[in-house]
Amino acid sequence: MYNEKYPSELLQNAVEAIGSLPGVGRRSALKLALHLLRQPAENVRHLTSSIDRLRNEVRYCSVCRMISDGDICGICSDSRRDHNTICVVESVRDVMSIEKTRQYTGVYHVLGGIISPIDGTGPSDLTVAELVDRVSSLVKSAAPESLEVIFALSGDVEGETTAFYIYRQLAPFGIKVSTLARGLGFGDDIDYADELTLGRSIANRQIFRP
Amino acid sequence: MYNEKYPSELLQNAVEAIGSLPGVGRRSALKLALHLLRQPAENVRHLTSSIDRLRNEVRYCSVCRMISDGDICGICSDSRRDHNTICVVESVRDVMSIEKTRQYTGVYHVLGGIISPIDGTGPSDLTVAELVDRVSSLVKSAAPESLEVIFALSGDVEGETTAFYIYRQLAPFGIKVSTLARGLGFGDDIDYADELTLGRSIANRQIFRP
Repeated sequence: MYNEKYPSELLQNAVEAIGSLPGVGRRSALKLALHLLRQPAENVRHLTSSIDRLRNEVRYCSVCRMISDGDICGICSDSRRDHNTICVVESVRDVMSIEKTRQYTGVYHVLGGIISPIDGTGPSDLTVAELVDRVSSLVKSAAPESLEVIFALSGDVEGETTAFYIYRQLAPFGIKVSTLARGLGFGDDIDYADELTLGRSIANRQIFRP
Repeated sequence: MYNEKYPSELLQNAVEAIGSLPGVGRRSALKLALHLLRQPAENVRHLTSSIDRLRNEVRYCSVCRMISDGDICGICSDSRRDHNTICVVESVRDVMSIEKTRQYTGVYHVLGGIISPIDGTGPSDLTVAELVDRVSSLVKSAAPESLEVIFALSGDVEGETTAFYIYRQLAPFGIKVSTLARGLGFGDDIDYADELTLGRSIANRQIFRP
């Protein structure tokens, strides 16, 4: 019998699999599947094998939990970086965003998520214990006041809950703990800023250095 | 050395391959790659294998050149359809669009493209010869006036060139040749219609049947 929606089961399976990706609707999935059909077989094989290899062979840095091709990532194994400053982020993507700014020379710690009771994500689902272990090792060889943990987490309730939870775990070590500056974006118009951001920008105003 | 853009070569390869798909930017490619990393391995395997199978195992109907799981597609093997009426389309997607309307009970012929001197696509790159063969076989067993070829091609220069080229090939058979009705869309406002469409709608006006 002819399936009115799909002329081929192979096409249907591929469209459904592609359509399950986030942000890819059924219509674009069909477009992509038909595009792949028109490509040379080796190009399609290259696409699928690079996805398979990523999923099956990728490793995570044993120090910071960043994606890595080896046991220790390129940042953690770079002696020119400041290993006493640890920037705590939610995800791999956050590391990539901060690296792109070229403003940061310390190292990272990837939590692998954020504390969210609604999503059922608790501290034990994240790499919080590993961060505490890292700091605990560092204080054995360096003065606590030379160590810093920076929270680079989202500004919502989950981000603040996570920062607060980790802060309490780190408090006994007496190290410096900081968080990203928040305020108006560079180039932002005051008229268009939301009240919360504008209010906090005034409260956290900084010395003018012309 | 640490690659500033990608923390892992596996990630870089996957992002570049995914980013080469049409309509997928580098940013969404990274998002998709990191999403796939968080999925169970069997889900990722299902995605890549359904793409590989589509590309390597799909077949084309030996009659109409539509995508098919077998030698003859579901439409061409359906005896309830009118095999004396052939709708000529550019692509697989066009067949799927027309099927969705449930208004057409004939069969199809998929050209696999459109004549376009700019893109270097000529009649020999399309399945025009196969269409002529099909019609030539049909006129041996049926009266020419009972046969119809419908052009369901785009309304641009390429579509019209293609229709005209095929029309000339089919003219000797004396069969009926038609093309899709063009005019204002249902529900379209006259104020907003473009001049060409409106002009042709008047020229091709139809008897009012209330």
